[in-house]
Amino acid sequence: MNKYAVYHTPDSNYAYAVARDTIVVTLRTAQNDVFDGIEILYQNKYIFTEQRLSKEMRKCASDGVFSYYRAEITLPDARFAYIFKLIQKGKIYYFSEDGISDKYSFGLAYYTFFQFPFINAVDVPQVAGWTKNAVFYQIFVDRFARGDFQKDDSYINTDWNGKTDRYSFCGGDLQGIENKLPYLKESGFNALYLTPVFLSDSNHKYGIRDYLQVDPQFGGNGKLKSLLSAAHAQDIKIIVDCVFNHCDADHPYFLDVREKGRKSEYFDWFIIDGDFPSVEKRNYACFAYCGTMPKWNTSNPDVRRYLTDIALQYLKTGFDGLRLDVADEISHEMWRLLRREVKTAYPEAVIIGEIWHDSGQWLKGDQLDGVMNYKLQKILVDYFGQKPIKAASAANAMNALLIANTEQANSNYLNFLDSHDTPRFFRTAGGNEKRLLCALCAVVMFPGMPCVFYGTEIPLDGGGDPDCRRPFDWTFKNRSPFYKEKFNRVIGLKKQCAFSDASAEISEEDGLLKIIRKTDGGTVCAYFNTSGSDKKIRPDGKTLFSINYSDGIISNDGSVVVENIKN
Amino acid sequence: MNKYAVYHTPDSNYAYAVARDTIVVTLRTAQNDVFDGIEILYQNKYIFTEQRLSKEMRKCASDGVFSYYRAEITLPDARFAYIFKLIQKGKIYYFSEDGISDKYSFGLAYYTFFQFPFINAVDVPQVAGWTKNAVFYQIFVDRFARGDFQKDDSYINTDWNGKTDRYSFCGGDLQGIENKLPYLKESGFNALYLTPVFLSDSNHKYGIRDYLQVDPQFGGNGKLKSLLSAAHAQDIKIIVDCVFNHCDADHPYFLDVREKGRKSEYFDWFIIDGDFPSVEKRNYACFAYCGTMPKWNTSNPDVRRYLTDIALQYLKTGFDGLRLDVADEISHEMWRLLRREVKTAYPEAVIIGEIWHDSGQWLKGDQLDGVMNYKLQKILVDYFGQKPIKAASAANAMNALLIANTEQANSNYLNFLDSHDTPRFFRTAGGNEKRLLCALCAVVMFPGMPCVFYGTEIPLDGGGDPDCRRPFDWTFKNRSPFYKEKFNRVIGLKKQCAFSDASAEISEEDGLLKIIRKTDGGTVCAYFNTSGSDKKIRPDGKTLFSINYSDGIISNDGSVVVENIKN
Repeated sequence: MNKYAVYHTPDSNYAYAVARDTIVVTLRTAQNDVFDGIEILYQNKYIFTEQRLSKEMRKCASDGVFSYYRAEITLPDARFAYIFKLIQKGKIYYFSEDGISDKYSFGLAYYTFFQFPFINAVDVPQVAGWTKNAVFYQIFVDRFARGDFQKDDSYINTDWNGKTDRYSFCGGDLQGIENKLPYLKESGFNALYLTPVFLSDSNHKYGIRDYLQVDPQFGGNGKLKSLLSAAHAQDIKIIVDCVFNHCDADHPYFLDVREKGRKSEYFDWFIIDGDFPSVEKRNYACFAYCGTMPKWNTSNPDVRRYLTDIALQYLKTGFDGLRLDVADEISHEMWRLLRREVKTAYPEAVIIGEIWHDSGQWLKGDQLDGVMNYKLQKILVDYFGQKPIKAASAANAMNALLIANTEQANSNYLNFLDSHDTPRFFRTAGGNEKRLLCALCAVVMFPGMPCVFYGTEIPLDGGGDPDCRRPFDWTFKNRSPFYKEKFNRVIGLKKQCAFSDASAEISEEDGLLKIIRKTDGGTVCAYFNTSGSDKKIRPDGKTLFSINYSDGIISNDGSVVVENIKN
Repeated sequence: MNKYAVYHTPDSNYAYAVARDTIVVTLRTAQNDVFDGIEILYQNKYIFTEQRLSKEMRKCASDGVFSYYRAEITLPDARFAYIFKLIQKGKIYYFSEDGISDKYSFGLAYYTFFQFPFINAVDVPQVAGWTKNAVFYQIFVDRFARGDFQKDDSYINTDWNGKTDRYSFCGGDLQGIENKLPYLKESGFNALYLTPVFLSDSNHKYGIRDYLQVDPQFGGNGKLKSLLSAAHAQDIKIIVDCVFNHCDADHPYFLDVREKGRKSEYFDWFIIDGDFPSVEKRNYACFAYCGTMPKWNTSNPDVRRYLTDIALQYLKTGFDGLRLDVADEISHEMWRLLRREVKTAYPEAVIIGEIWHDSGQWLKGDQLDGVMNYKLQKILVDYFGQKPIKAASAANAMNALLIANTEQANSNYLNFLDSHDTPRFFRTAGGNEKRLLCALCAVVMFPGMPCVFYGTEIPLDGGGDPDCRRPFDWTFKNRSPFYKEKFNRVIGLKKQCAFSDASAEISEEDGLLKIIRKTDGGTVCAYFNTSGSDKKIRPDGKTLFSINYSDGIISNDGSVVVENIKN
């Protein structure tokens, strides 16, 4: 047995509570180690020395280097003590806090067992019910649809059908979104993620001057209320983009500091090197190197209070959740305060952070519910892009991603192919509609909440920022009947399948990527082929949906078969 | 290279901030892997793709299976991106969030580097200054000293020199402690940890009926104030034992629930199965199986508020810190609230939890400062007890313990040989004074705060609870001049050495356990011998202190040599 590979640590993604009396326990081993069996020996910590329960651990994932074994264990008095018993070639190994040994002294176990000492209800992360069936649509507001033709539109500098650049204003607004709600509903979406809508000089509005005033370009506060009401009337949720990392250099508080320097009551609300901030010298912390976007000092409790009150105000206005911009650069204390107050007042509000890297530290239950899954996005680009990695590599990477967090966090992953910060996936896929649809199907099949960037349904083309933010083409002139039909099938899968939990069995099979999800009645299985050669498959169930599939052959340039398997 | 052994994860004990611009990064490898060198490549995340800084990582510990390499890295704009470069037999490996590879695409690094996205000051744990030089003395109040001979002493049922059992009351009180402060000061102690002093029926007072009333047996609230003043006047700190996991079944709130059941406003302050709690049926969560100690429901925000206010009141009264009983069974949310409020009002208050197992989840900076180091205590019992494990095993276990947490947490370990919950170490050591002194020296040499259980300086004998709680023998009749002198030297080491940080180099050398600590002028090194055979050593520096050491021979039955090595 490879002792270097064996890993477990309590109260982490390797052991977490899912109910007041139940924890999910995972053990890691080397993938190429074969076991006769792996058991978890467990009991209330006061009894463990004398007698123990035992449960077989089941292999739940492999990532190319390691395999992961899992068991869910329940105790009425949930003070869990446990160790692992691994059997290989008839030889028994024990794994406890003291490491691996071939003997284990149960009499001295109190010192060495792993423990999950008590499950306190408040520490068990709850998942907002509506997120289970959410299918999101991300809208870049200036570019989706214009609805208000009465407004002062002197700011619009680019024709809706014209070529956009970094400084273009095209006139999209909240009335436009409201007008298109029936279209979005019909297209299969029941949740919207809007890029920021508050007072800001830019088209993207990520440099905010007033957090509580909807930009007049978008229709002002009244129009926001109207949109939220209309959306809710159609059972559509809306989450708001909270730009709490930084504000605009013309935000009144920063202006006050620019004027008064250290004497301003807001001086310590920013992170300034010197007595006065200077936009020219950029002697203060910013977003990236943008002097026009000074960074809030979220180590200051007054700043945490200010921003949390804004979030609460957003939810009071009617938003159903928060998308937190640059969530990884903001203090953990900020997120703890925000979560505590948000979840107390609005238990069904979802909190999603923008995190591009390993997100474990934010997803332990005290900060965020989920993250924008940029790590999945990278895997999808690598696998469904023009030079695809092998199906096994994609499966390994997907498994590593699922193992990295709890089931609660996985169920609130916001999964997507592209966003306002990336090239359009259609471009990445070389303009190949089938690859785009296939990749989108993987998004829907992956645990979490699918999120489709506006225009994907046309499909809209575009390179990196700002080219990915072109105006929506309401003529639909580039949408083929084939694309429309398949797009609707892919988006409809989530509703059709009603996956029963946030787990997935992901593997490579004969060069195909295979994703299996549980449903109430059995399983749903999807096969993806981007291998460059046609592959034979023999479906086990009833085909729900396919692209380029016939007579057991799944073709090579971005194909998918999804089938329903009854138990 | 053994890829199964290589491990790192950001914002954990493997990467933590120690200042606004500095993180400490650790990489794990297989201990038997030999490297030509290991570097960390790092830079601000926006620059990393183009150019990087590099720093050699230094091996800081081995635990018998793994070795750990460490570097401290600093950036003025502290948005760290980093990967590791491992060189073995001339071959280069890279280790990033994507795993191990022999090539690394720096152009795509934004997706795969490890990151510590930004250091927010509020998230960097601060260590209370006074704890660096603290030498604690733990007092079981009923058994240390009686000072008040005017009080109603009808509760005393056991003569000070008599044999105690679980129900003995011997009359020790706060006046007794106050009277002995000069003695304690002279013995080298500058901090006291008192077992609970509040209204309770038992001699140990862990079942509290009134959290804000000092038990009259101990002298009442006035006497506590007097003790705190007297201690502070002599530069002695006192921390209070906070019993927040449970109360007494006769606590007024539980009594109210016993009377009114579900109609009591305190019903949800406990965890009750049914409409009425019944002490006979024990149909509620308790400490262990003690029906007389109902567990507080710290998932209830009102309970968290109530207990936190009590902690704040303790600190307002003058206590210098908190020792949290059964800290591992209380909600993490409780500790987060308590830390936030305590550290805001009393930044120099220390928060120590009773945790017998891996304590990582409480020591990330948002909950506790440190823990009672029961894991070290187990190692010391194993190594300095009558059937000693090998020095290498002890060194490995100690290294694993130090690697498991941040330097801030390590510096606030409360290290001890025994407590009111264990047999006296003197008993464990078979009554061997030298072993006891030796083990005590290891406690002082280990990073953290030494804590001596009352009576160790006599030395007091005793088995497990309640026998470890015998009254102090103020005749000192069992204390030999040899023991007294060596005890004072051991306890004096902490002050004499003034260790400069909370790191230690711990290893086995020729069958000896060796602990090296940094000081301002160089290092201090201690050799311990419990191997059963005499060992030769050749000191590198000036001997500060020794037991049974002469002519380069360190004898076999619990010996130590401590030497000062100038740079």
